[in-house]
Amino acid sequence: MTKNGLEIIEELESCVRSYVRAFPTVFTKARGYKMWDEDGKEYIDFFSGAGALNYGHNEPNMKKKLVEYILDDGITHSLDMASSAKAEFLEKFNEVILKPRDLDYKVMFPGPTGTNTVESALKLARKVTGRTEIISFTNGFHGMTIGSLSVTGNSMKRSGAGIPLHNTVTMPYDNFVSDELDTLEYLERFLEDNGSGVSIPAAIILETVQGEGGINAARFEWIKKVDEICKRWGILLIIDDVQAGVGRTGTFFSFEPAGIKPDIVCLSKSIGGYGLPLALTLISPELDQWKPGEHNGTFRGNNHAFVTATEALTYWEDPTFEKSIQDKSATITKFLENMIEKYPEMKGHLKGRGFMQGISSDVEGFSEKVAEEAFNRCLIMETAGGHDQVFKLFPPINIDEAGLEKGFELIEESIKEAIKQMNLEKDTVAN
Amino acid sequence: MTKNGLEIIEELESCVRSYVRAFPTVFTKARGYKMWDEDGKEYIDFFSGAGALNYGHNEPNMKKKLVEYILDDGITHSLDMASSAKAEFLEKFNEVILKPRDLDYKVMFPGPTGTNTVESALKLARKVTGRTEIISFTNGFHGMTIGSLSVTGNSMKRSGAGIPLHNTVTMPYDNFVSDELDTLEYLERFLEDNGSGVSIPAAIILETVQGEGGINAARFEWIKKVDEICKRWGILLIIDDVQAGVGRTGTFFSFEPAGIKPDIVCLSKSIGGYGLPLALTLISPELDQWKPGEHNGTFRGNNHAFVTATEALTYWEDPTFEKSIQDKSATITKFLENMIEKYPEMKGHLKGRGFMQGISSDVEGFSEKVAEEAFNRCLIMETAGGHDQVFKLFPPINIDEAGLEKGFELIEESIKEAIKQMNLEKDTVAN
Amino acid sequence: MTKNGLEIIEELESCVRSYVRAFPTVFTKARGYKMWDEDGKEYIDFFSGAGALNYGHNEPNMKKKLVEYILDDGITHSLDMASSAKAEFLEKFNEVILKPRDLDYKVMFPGPTGTNTVESALKLARKVTGRTEIISFTNGFHGMTIGSLSVTGNSMKRSGAGIPLHNTVTMPYDNFVSDELDTLEYLERFLEDNGSGVSIPAAIILETVQGEGGINAARFEWIKKVDEICKRWGILLIIDDVQAGVGRTGTFFSFEPAGIKPDIVCLSKSIGGYGLPLALTLISPELDQWKPGEHNGTFRGNNHAFVTATEALTYWEDPTFEKSIQDKSATITKFLENMIEKYPEMKGHLKGRGFMQGISSDVEGFSEKVAEEAFNRCLIMETAGGHDQVFKLFPPINIDEAGLEKGFELIEESIKEAIKQMNLEKDTVAN
Amino acid sequence: MTKNGLEIIEELESCVRSYVRAFPTVFTKARGYKMWDEDGKEYIDFFSGAGALNYGHNEPNMKKKLVEYILDDGITHSLDMASSAKAEFLEKFNEVILKPRDLDYKVMFPGPTGTNTVESALKLARKVTGRTEIISFTNGFHGMTIGSLSVTGNSMKRSGAGIPLHNTVTMPYDNFVSDELDTLEYLERFLEDNGSGVSIPAAIILETVQGEGGINAARFEWIKKVDEICKRWGILLIIDDVQAGVGRTGTFFSFEPAGIKPDIVCLSKSIGGYGLPLALTLISPELDQWKPGEHNGTFRGNNHAFVTATEALTYWEDPTFEKSIQDKSATITKFLENMIEKYPEMKGHLKGRGFMQGISSDVEGFSEKVAEEAFNRCLIMETAGGHDQVFKLFPPINIDEAGLEKGFELIEESIKEAIKQMNLEKDTVAN
Repeated sequence: MTKNGLEIIEELESCVRSYVRAFPTVFTKARGYKMWDEDGKEYIDFFSGAGALNYGHNEPNMKKKLVEYILDDGITHSLDMASSAKAEFLEKFNEVILKPRDLDYKVMFPGPTGTNTVESALKLARKVTGRTEIISFTNGFHGMTIGSLSVTGNSMKRSGAGIPLHNTVTMPYDNFVSDELDTLEYLERFLEDNGSGVSIPAAIILETVQGEGGINAARFEWIKKVDEICKRWGILLIIDDVQAGVGRTGTFFSFEPAGIKPDIVCLSKSIGGYGLPLALTLISPELDQWKPGEHNGTFRGNNHAFVTATEALTYWEDPTFEKSIQDKSATITKFLENMIEKYPEMKGHLKGRGFMQGISSDVEGFSEKVAEEAFNRCLIMETAGGHDQVFKLFPPINIDEAGLEKGFELIEESIKEAIKQMNLEKDTVAN
Repeated sequence: MTKNGLEIIEELESCVRSYVRAFPTVFTKARGYKMWDEDGKEYIDFFSGAGALNYGHNEPNMKKKLVEYILDDGITHSLDMASSAKAEFLEKFNEVILKPRDLDYKVMFPGPTGTNTVESALKLARKVTGRTEIISFTNGFHGMTIGSLSVTGNSMKRSGAGIPLHNTVTMPYDNFVSDELDTLEYLERFLEDNGSGVSIPAAIILETVQGEGGINAARFEWIKKVDEICKRWGILLIIDDVQAGVGRTGTFFSFEPAGIKPDIVCLSKSIGGYGLPLALTLISPELDQWKPGEHNGTFRGNNHAFVTATEALTYWEDPTFEKSIQDKSATITKFLENMIEKYPEMKGHLKGRGFMQGISSDVEGFSEKVAEEAFNRCLIMETAGGHDQVFKLFPPINIDEAGLEKGFELIEESIKEAIKQMNLEKDTVAN
Repeated sequence: MTKNGLEIIEELESCVRSYVRAFPTVFTKARGYKMWDEDGKEYIDFFSGAGALNYGHNEPNMKKKLVEYILDDGITHSLDMASSAKAEFLEKFNEVILKPRDLDYKVMFPGPTGTNTVESALKLARKVTGRTEIISFTNGFHGMTIGSLSVTGNSMKRSGAGIPLHNTVTMPYDNFVSDELDTLEYLERFLEDNGSGVSIPAAIILETVQGEGGINAARFEWIKKVDEICKRWGILLIIDDVQAGVGRTGTFFSFEPAGIKPDIVCLSKSIGGYGLPLALTLISPELDQWKPGEHNGTFRGNNHAFVTATEALTYWEDPTFEKSIQDKSATITKFLENMIEKYPEMKGHLKGRGFMQGISSDVEGFSEKVAEEAFNRCLIMETAGGHDQVFKLFPPINIDEAGLEKGFELIEESIKEAIKQMNLEKDTVAN
Repeated sequence: MTKNGLEIIEELESCVRSYVRAFPTVFTKARGYKMWDEDGKEYIDFFSGAGALNYGHNEPNMKKKLVEYILDDGITHSLDMASSAKAEFLEKFNEVILKPRDLDYKVMFPGPTGTNTVESALKLARKVTGRTEIISFTNGFHGMTIGSLSVTGNSMKRSGAGIPLHNTVTMPYDNFVSDELDTLEYLERFLEDNGSGVSIPAAIILETVQGEGGINAARFEWIKKVDEICKRWGILLIIDDVQAGVGRTGTFFSFEPAGIKPDIVCLSKSIGGYGLPLALTLISPELDQWKPGEHNGTFRGNNHAFVTATEALTYWEDPTFEKSIQDKSATITKFLENMIEKYPEMKGHLKGRGFMQGISSDVEGFSEKVAEEAFNRCLIMETAGGHDQVFKLFPPINIDEAGLEKGFELIEESIKEAIKQMNLEKDTVAN
């Protein structure tokens, strides 16, 4: 190449590109929680592909299995024909994940991305119930194709549709209006009053922790109550666990601590284990009323991803794995609480749960500045929320203590630098 | 495994699965145009992953590059951050494909599947024009998410949405009504009469050869005329080249012989080369008006696919490659014409173009029977069309003569067997 | 009043007003086919309230009945409570209109205007069939509320909605594309091909002669064939007879000569007889599946209109009445044919049927000029069509020969003047 | 007639009819607050055509003017051509109503019914703002055509559409969730959070007192706050005063005591004075951006209604008229409060405002029973609310004291009888 990579991308790639603007370097290699760019510079990754790399980059066991599979001419692409790689994945997923949790879902491969699984879930819910409406929540994020976008809250994303988005009703997520208001009392009033203009929907779709929407974690009792409302009114409950699932919040499924069994579960991102495109739609057996081929897609049989996904499940055979995530989550919480207390200038609030935590700053532009400074210190970290008001920690869930500590160190430095650059010391005194 | 693969799939996978029903065996390995199942049985693949495997299975050069990349801990997943694999792909795609064809498209990575690129194209067309309607064509197939499904003709697929599909108008594809009727005269009447109920749309979306819809090939002069209509009325032209592109019809882009330059081009399936999920949306520079992140997706940076896609482009550096596809296409045409003449009982009509040809039989159930018998003879071949009236030949475009001949042989046997089983000899006499 | 009427209207009425711009005077009185303005100037009315005044203005018998009813404190407004005026109307409508035509419709009062009856018809068709789509025709006009507007072709009217209009498909009306093309072959191809993107609709809605759309008269065999298609596919047929009904085309219902019995018929405009707001939706008994009050409206019981509507039906008791309309229709046809032949400069084509005929001129602006000149000569006459290319004759159907002749005379003068002012004599020579 | 009126209606009218079921007799005459059926039985009308007869039946002055006009061959039907009757109405409406209230609205005649004015208001709001969404409120009722139905809350009415209803968001009306909750804090959270899924709408549409929805009266400070929110966010405010306007709540416009000036006001029902179909859309001058004829309708020029509407305005020239309505309103309130206290068995709550008050009973079926017993005693009174839980008093606003007292008497008797028949005395003891 005569031009460097960034120049090529600048010249040839659409202006829709986004993360490359925040992290302007060309990455070449990665392992675990580390990434290297073309100059050999090393980065710590507290972003994890927005939750697609829960096991870190290029995890060695998966890598080994994948290379063997490829070298052996294992079948790569199979639409939805049977392959041994698929059968092995299904069997292990059932044995390691579903059975121990007493779940009897049928597994659908709806195409390999998050928006595919959400679209398939919405279609199935409407088809099975014969109803058209879906209730989603404020600040929910479910995907960019028209069906998923219709249940996504973000106004910039929605306006990208170029058409009005239909057949959905947005209800207030936990704590949306204020800490005191019970948002579900509100929701249920709409269901029970036949003059409310809101008909009984086919389904309610829900993230237990909203990643893109600002790392908003719903309380488990709130989630439990949503489930009860669904049962009371004959509404299907869809949990979109694309980002919060696969261990990100401390359990395989994010909803486990709430003690519920959703009708449909959407999985993608880290289910493939290695960052390869894969998505599952888990369906309660009585709802599996699809006609053959009624939903399809070219890449619903990505066998490379089956191979790594199967290997990734090995983590979950070890009973101490979940415990280790939860312990490290507590470390993250402690670190963030300490930061909030130590740096009141940033007016921070703790957000999220598990490996999906962050700080929401009331100071406009502060969180963006922290993320920017973190990148200057070779830490990859993203912001979230409608005004990018949250900087969020998304390290791999199998990161070691040293990696966590190193990241914390860089974050604290970035916070300090951000406070300094934004002259927040004075502001605080003034207040 | 104690159960065999088919039993596991039967038990655990959703009943939406389809191809596994037509090809009930568990595949394990594949190379070129050959596949093997778990019993070691060898199959000839005239299906090519519905166009996702134009270079055959596990092409050796791509395989080598991919394994090296993985072993070297090349970055796997990068959202839309810059990676050297992406930059290399962009540069080579520009050098080998765009520049020689005098095309200056900006490249968007809309998520890795066909429906992602179609959704992004529709969104962009609406956003840029400020109009809401899209004109699509009868028997078009563009994907299963709500936006793409709205421009897809198939009634079974459409009813899977569970909601009315909006903002689209279906117009008759070339030869839809009859061979004599000029369907574009019809279309243009709707545009020019301000009482027609059809407003000037944001875009017209078009496959030059409709794969799923029955291997319907539009004449190049018809395609050219669509382009003229678009220019005359200020309508954007979107060519969905997901299936017909990447050499399937004899040129890299299927529309090249029509002498047009679409405003937006959708690519997926074989663009990744190796059967790995990848999709591109090619956008005329002046239309590239996305805001950063206005359309996004977790797997829009699938670096494994960038690596194999880059290697796949090497084929196109060789000026004889296109010629070889076209020569073999002629062989396929000759074979099919011969079959139609030799077996009038099947009442066959030649359909399609290039490596996307087939026979439409007027005898109900005949084509399905041929495909079934082909599978019994270890040839993988699919049917197409609203009533599965077409059996279609989709071998890899780099198949050798021997492979083609072997396939032809099995197909002729299958035709003969189908005629026999359906007692068509008598029918013919009776006619 | 210190200001005159036109000044008041200019100052206080919304700019949406339209006819007052073409006929800029203040009318005060009217009788039969004559109107007078506040200066006492007399006009001949070949417009008839766009078909709402088929019996002329202030018909003496209806007037007498109405005044008696009012003086007697007959109930004026009754929602849908029972009133003697309503019962009398229903009984006479059944005796004089329905029974002799062997029709057994149930009568719905959907609110007093054309758009109310169309909306009720569409709702019922969707409700009864459980389908959402409606097929309407190019240049159809059915009303201005969102449901009716969705099946109306005119782009200016449609864009007034401010939202995309859904759940409808526009098909080509008779002769829409060309005289040769069978538009119904086209329509049926869409129905029979399950990949056409057009699902079987709840209903087809149709005007037998399109008034607003340009006085397009469908051939009776075409209408008959639409009916056959509806029967073949289980589609409901709705005839919108709001403008063409109540004798305007020579029979009470405009569809009678086609020998069909629609599932639902929409009536309004002249059904009240005296120009008072009234509308009926006639429903085949087996389709009358409304829940009580599922469609309602404040003015669905306009008793003054019941009184005049009942009296108006007296005309239809006389078997010679229809004959007289048809005879005079022939006179109109003859006059218009003569004009076309005599004044080739206007490049005129005969349009329409019965008392709903006009001339479509290929000379841009000509028909508007004729209407303008007619007004200057105190003849009220409207244009129609997407480009106002038709001037149309809509006299009352009970007009006498003298009135017709007087109108003809003024129209011929207007044509001559228009030709002169537009210098068409020369043009003709040049051609 | 050989059959009686009810038999004829039963046989010939659609089963959609509703009020005739609650009031099964055939009315023939009416004057003021009295009606008579065909047997000469006299009824007291506390229903007033659901608000269309605010001046009572057949008011003598209007009657006189109307008869004179008809006898004099005054023009009856004029589309939107100028007529002296229209000009006189416009001038008087401006002088008597608009100017004294410092209102400068342009007057649109959108067709003669409530749903016409609502549809025109929604269309205009969308057109002017270029936005598609409308915010309406729980239990709002705005009409039965698709546009108006989309902003109507009642689920039975909505399901009558047969299609999903789009482009609207329902927000909680005052006191919808509970007495404590500030529903507007909730609404505004949705507007201010750009991840809420609710975009800034074109307009908010509002009834100050919801008639059909259960006689829910919003507090004036709540209405005032809605107006402030509209101003803050650049949203148009549409007051649907079809039922609550023209004096029904004590002032000409129901919103006057809130001190607001809506952008658009919808009037119908009693604006015609005599129960004749008429509707107005009042538009702030800067919003009057209609193209000529962009919204039209056959009966937008109902001159009989102009004549009576003009005469009706005479009431409002007398400064004591409003006062008298308010005084009688207080009498109604006092009566109802007394009933609630005197008959605790009915568990009643006072609802509404002005001549639009009623009692909501927590005893299921009680209010319906009261209305039924009232009819048995020759008092016409309707129920309201999603479960018919409210019996409502809607006498004419010009009723005299004697009429009111007579009605009260019959209502108290009906309450007593209902309590007796439903054995509520015991229930109360038990509680």
